[in-house]
Amino acid sequence: MENHELKHIIEEADNAINREDFVALLDFYSDDATLVIKPGMLAKGKDEIRKAFEAIAEYFNHSLVVKQGEMSIIEAGDTALVISKTLLSANQKTDSIFSMERKATYVFKKDFNKIWRCVIDNSYGVDLLEEKNI
Amino acid sequence: MENHELKHIIEEADNAINREDFVALLDFYSDDATLVIKPGMLAKGKDEIRKAFEAIAEYFNHSLVVKQGEMSIIEAGDTALVISKTLLSANQKTDSIFSMERKATYVFKKDFNKIWRCVIDNSYGVDLLEEKNI
Repeated sequence: MENHELKHIIEEADNAINREDFVALLDFYSDDATLVIKPGMLAKGKDEIRKAFEAIAEYFNHSLVVKQGEMSIIEAGDTALVISKTLLSANQKTDSIFSMERKATYVFKKDFNKIWRCVIDNSYGVDLLEEKNI
Repeated sequence: MENHELKHIIEEADNAINREDFVALLDFYSDDATLVIKPGMLAKGKDEIRKAFEAIAEYFNHSLVVKQGEMSIIEAGDTALVISKTLLSANQKTDSIFSMERKATYVFKKDFNKIWRCVIDNSYGVDLLEEKNI
């Protein structure tokens, strides 16, 4: 698991979020990817995903830091389900420190060049069930 | 969500498990599907998945009943991530009633005939992170 290709890909994607390099970030997603912005709110496709990350960066006062902790990767053919502890921290506009741990679920698929792309980015994991009506 | 095609497909798959019709059940999986039997133990492909379900049926004294509760479905192109409350019950060999609720994660993909097939069946959801070393 330590050296799984997807672990490194997700680390690079997190680095792109942290430096707000959304051109680099979008390259990790498939053209038809879906991002769960929050329960009940989805971004579909690269344009909507870019706008969502721009809004998220603004919301967190350009101080969001994302990194992954423990990870499980289940592969089946050209598809993979990644279960990952996701650690978020930021200095919020109120000057209070925001810090949060989620158990995220990401679905990756190999494209025609055999490169892994994120097709479903759901950082809320199974908490969607509790929170989707909020 | 109530009428999503995948909700009905999963209900039919549960019915097949409950009546131990593994021929019908395997039709819901892709040829390259992966089933998480328990954390750290995978069944890959239809032969291994059939053997796993036969062993599970035996373990639960042929009394396992599986059904789904609340469900969230996130689609992206021909792929879907299903987050679902999964309710398991059985009369165990000790005559005690076994009952358990899990928050499962299933990945489905449309095959070349546009029929949804389960490619990753992980009934443990994000609990894999805690339990994978058990």
